[in-house]
Order: sequence, then structure tokens, then C-alpha cells
Amino acid sequence: MHRLTPYVPGEQPKISQLVKLNTNENPYGPSPQVLDAIQAELSDALRLYPDPNAERLKQAIADYYGVTPAQVFVGNGSDEVLAHIFQALLQHPAPLLFPDITYSFYPVYCGLYGIECIAIPLAEDFSLRVADYLRPNGGIIFPNPNAPTGCLLPLADIEWLLARNPDAVIVIDEAYIDFGGETAIVLVNRYPNLLVTQTLSKSRSLAGLRVGLAVGHPELIEALERVKNSFNSYPLDRLAIAGAVAAFADREHFEHTRQAVIASRMELIGALQKLGFETLPSAANFIFTRHPQRNGAELAAALREHRVIVRHFRQSRIDQFLRITVGNPAQNAALITTLGQILAEC
Amino acid sequence: MHRLTPYVPGEQPKISQLVKLNTNENPYGPSPQVLDAIQAELSDALRLYPDPNAERLKQAIADYYGVTPAQVFVGNGSDEVLAHIFQALLQHPAPLLFPDITYSFYPVYCGLYGIECIAIPLAEDFSLRVADYLRPNGGIIFPNPNAPTGCLLPLADIEWLLARNPDAVIVIDEAYIDFGGETAIVLVNRYPNLLVTQTLSKSRSLAGLRVGLAVGHPELIEALERVKNSFNSYPLDRLAIAGAVAAFADREHFEHTRQAVIASRMELIGALQKLGFETLPSAANFIFTRHPQRNGAELAAALREHRVIVRHFRQSRIDQFLRITVGNPAQNAALITTLGQILAEC
Repeated sequence: MHRLTPYVPGEQPKISQLVKLNTNENPYGPSPQVLDAIQAELSDALRLYPDPNAERLKQAIADYYGVTPAQVFVGNGSDEVLAHIFQALLQHPAPLLFPDITYSFYPVYCGLYGIECIAIPLAEDFSLRVADYLRPNGGIIFPNPNAPTGCLLPLADIEWLLARNPDAVIVIDEAYIDFGGETAIVLVNRYPNLLVTQTLSKSRSLAGLRVGLAVGHPELIEALERVKNSFNSYPLDRLAIAGAVAAFADREHFEHTRQAVIASRMELIGALQKLGFETLPSAANFIFTRHPQRNGAELAAALREHRVIVRHFRQSRIDQFLRITVGNPAQNAALITTLGQILAEC
Repeated sequence: MHRLTPYVPGEQPKISQLVKLNTNENPYGPSPQVLDAIQAELSDALRLYPDPNAERLKQAIADYYGVTPAQVFVGNGSDEVLAHIFQALLQHPAPLLFPDITYSFYPVYCGLYGIECIAIPLAEDFSLRVADYLRPNGGIIFPNPNAPTGCLLPLADIEWLLARNPDAVIVIDEAYIDFGGETAIVLVNRYPNLLVTQTLSKSRSLAGLRVGLAVGHPELIEALERVKNSFNSYPLDRLAIAGAVAAFADREHFEHTRQAVIASRMELIGALQKLGFETLPSAANFIFTRHPQRNGAELAAALREHRVIVRHFRQSRIDQFLRITVGNPAQNAALITTLGQILAEC
């Protein structure tokens, strides 16, 4: 275990008065119906265990996506769901494939469970070419849209790959799908090798509640349940179950806030362009951007001095980029003003 | 993964009007201060990730037990904490030792992580003889008081074993310690091979919130953190952290409710004795009892027909026993009345 290199999440600073654009949280709060539902659950009943199978929540998700509860798995944040997926479904003699630029937790899970993996380089423009994944594998995983690039892969490309890789699981990690893509859940009834994960942390504004999910063939879900029930019978507490059910019920709040984020993203990309930044096309609630004349690490440090926190990765190919969460209009304006000052200073 | 035999928790029935004495929940609700603290945390701030290290909670636990935060690990229920312990600390060539009659999740974890284990028989009277554990091992784990027997091992016996087993970790699972024992946490500064786990599900009445902890040498804690941070950065949500901190602050509610449970336990054992039951000495919030003339499985089934749910294990040595949670006076009276009827019926 001393060999493990743990995942390093974006900083959760304890000082206030920050413009915090580093961990892709939603700038808008959760649905008031979520807060009401948690409030209603907040009672002496906390002395009792939650439903170990969170059946209410599985039913709510199944209804929302037009699948059955037997096709739904839930967990304590999508990171836990992903961990169970790596342990239950991706341990094979053939290597797991994922992009060279992607969610940096994937190689950490491989280290934890002893899974061999191969990083497949993204194209020069950071797009994912599905043909590159046509090689022997024990599974394929990537986020869609990808992180930290924000680039979206069309559903047709995913289906093309699913049809050509029938003997291994393909996991589509849709943490950011609601900000500009179409979910691959529509394909689960046709492809038993497809597993789609999502989180309530981003588009449902519930990073602080820890709820994630996976949708796929009942046999994949059953394998996940077997590992989950050998790890922790009750991963979701009573308040999380109640809040998550309410989050799927309030479609109006969901629609309103995600459209606000999408609109702000377009404005933000435009404003950055005026400052000389080049931004990758984004279907997420963050953008991935660089300035041709300025060093990425230095820009991130200068922003931090001005109390604006963004994420910078010291990794080849992307070390000149900043990953910036799309904030509310005031946060985005503060970012643009500050970047303008920094660029003018020298 | 198809070989895994998952843990089967006690039933969480969805029908009401039951006398539910099967999963060792506290009959009294959590501290009102816990509900207030969660209420105060229930806001738009749920859009933000929790503190991945739950530092406030580690500090509260450290203060409560007179240790440092570097000696404290927290997780999503003590089952998750135990899972990380098995993966991080108990994977060795030498076998793990635990009692033949004990928490049935231990062999499940061994299956999940491929850990060889040996079940050491308890004595005829179900007491644990520490001398039986003086053999080559890669670790030792048992609950204290033991489950499902309720029998307490004196702290002196634990210290005797710690001193004689310096090269492997000894995990004391103190889920029920507050109902009649003295915590081994007082020994952690002297024995770097000691790790103590606890839960807020029993004596803190928070089974529905999912918070567990471990206390031990900083090197053991660091190994657990490495696995935790390779599995899920944010296992405890914002509401759970706030509620758990408040639970340790309200010593009066804790003391009042645990004394009520202890008093009820003594009354319950006395009432069962009048019905002819033989009950093992219990330091937990449950009792383990049998009737010399009646079959255990049949008694459990008959109770169930009368809407009283207790736990029965189909396992050799203990298949004549019932494990019964100590309820409040009304629940205990209902149990005794029902048992009296069942015994009179034939």
C-alpha cells in the first residue's frame, strides 16, 4: 500500500472572499425542494439505518431516464461508484484503456486494484478518436465531455465503439453531460457492454451531499452490488437519499440553472477571447484555456494572488492551460477583470 | 468477483407498527444539538464539496479522546472504515485471526481483498481467550464487546495481547463499547500496533447518518488515508460532518441515553430469566439469549408473526440463540409479553 499515489482533489480553501473556480462546483444552489426534502427527513429517525438499497432513489432515477431500477446503481458520490466499477468490472488480464489527458483519478484506481492500463493519446486538438481504442482491452473508460478539456464526443462515436468492442465494458463517465451533451443512457438497452456514470455534484448542485450513480445492463449492476455489499451495506445516508430523490423531481430548477451556466460559459469564452486566450470547445461547466504569450502556471499563481482560484495541471501537453469553472456572472466578471489586470501588468 | 459472498445486514422492513429489535439501533433519537447543527448546514452551501479531510470532525474526536487529529481517521460508517483497514493494513502472507463467532462482515472483507483468515473458536461460554491468539498472524481483529454475543473482554486482556503481538496490527472494533466497556483508545499512545474503531450508529443514535472512525498510531492512520484518497476523496458529506461534530459536543444527551439503555438491558435480562431464558452477560445494546426448551429459529419466526423482529443466525454453536436489541421500556415490554404468549401457546 506504500506504493499508492492517491488522487489529489482541487483545493477546498477555508478562507472566504475567494472567487473559487477550481473544482467545478455549480455557482447556483440546489433546488429548494432538495432542502425541503432533507429538512423533512431530519428527525429522530436518524437513529435508524437507511434503506441499504436506496430503492426510492433507484426508482426515481429509473423513472427519470426510462430504465428499470435493476439497471441503476447508486453510491456515495460518483468517485465511490467509479471505485466499485474498477474493482468489480475492470480487473482483467488485458489492459484498461483511457485517454492520456483525462480524469486523473483513473490511474489512481488502477494502482489501488492492480489494474494494468494504457493511456491512449488524444488527437492534437484534444479530441478523442474512437478508432484508436480498437485494440485488445479489458475495458475502456473516459469522461464525456472529457475532463479537463471539456470536449464532447458525439453519441454516434460512442455507439460506433460499443458495437466494435462487444467483449469488454465501456464506461462513459458523464459527470458533466448535462451542460451540453446527450446522455449515452439512451443506449444501455441496446449495448450490454455499456455502463454510464453520473453525479449529482455538478448539474444538480449537490457536491456537498455526495451522490453518484451508474446505469447499465442488470448483470453489470449486479456485479457492482456484490462488491458494494462486500464493502459497505449503507453507503447513502437518509438525508442524501431524500435530497437526491427531490433533485430528480425538480426539473424546472435543474433546467433553469444549467441553462444559466451554459449561457455564462459562452459569454466567458467570448470575454477570454478578447483578452487573447484560446479556449477549447466546451460542453461542460468549465473551460480549458491558454494564452499564447503567457505561462499557464504563472497565470494560475498570479490569479491566486488576486484571490481567484483556478486549476492548473503540471502535466505534459496541458501545462500551459488553465481549467476554469464557469461561475455566476459576478464571479466570471471578477475573473475577467483580474486577468485583464494581470495581462496589463507586464 | 462472482465468488464474493456479500454481507447480509439485518432487515430494514418497510412496514410500520413493528417492534424492530433486529439491527441494534438506539431506541432514543440523536441529540437535538445534532439536528440543529445539520439544520444550520442545510443551505445553498451544499453546492460546494465538503472538506475532504473532515478536519473539524477529526479535531472534535481528538479532543474528546485526548489524542491528536493525526491519530484519527473518519469514514462513511464504520463498515467503510473497516473495509479500508482490511485493504490497507491486513493484507499479509500470514493469516488474519478473528473469533469463530463474531461480526460476520469480517470474512466478507477477507473475500473482497483476498486475505487468508483463521477463525479461532471462542471458549465454551463464548468468552474470548487471548492466549489462543498467540500464533503467527498478519493481524487480529475482534469486536469488544463481541457481536453477536455481547461479551466484554477486559482492557487488561487486550493489553496483554498487544504486548505479545508487536509485529502485527490488532484492531479492536468498539461499535458497542459505550454500553458497558472501557475504550482501548487509552492504550494507543503506548501500542503502535493498536487500532480502535468506533461508530456513531449505536451509542450516538446516528445509524441513518453514516459516520465511523478509527484511532491509532499516525502511521496506521496515514496508511488508511492513502487508501481512502485512492478510493473517494470526500467520503463524508457536509451534513454528516456537522452532525457528527455536534454529537461529540453533547455529552449530557449521550450519557443520559446510554444509561437508559444500560438500565433497560438489566431489566430485560431479568424479565427473560423469569420466562426461562438463559442470557449471556452483555456489555452492548443487545442481548444474546436462548431458551433451553425452545428452538431458536422457531422462536424468531413466532416473534415475527407477532410483529416483533429480532435477529437469528443459522450458524453452528449459536443457532439456538436470539440476538435482541435493547429497546425502550415500551418495546421491551412488548417483547416480553409476546414471548410469554408464545411460550404459553404450546
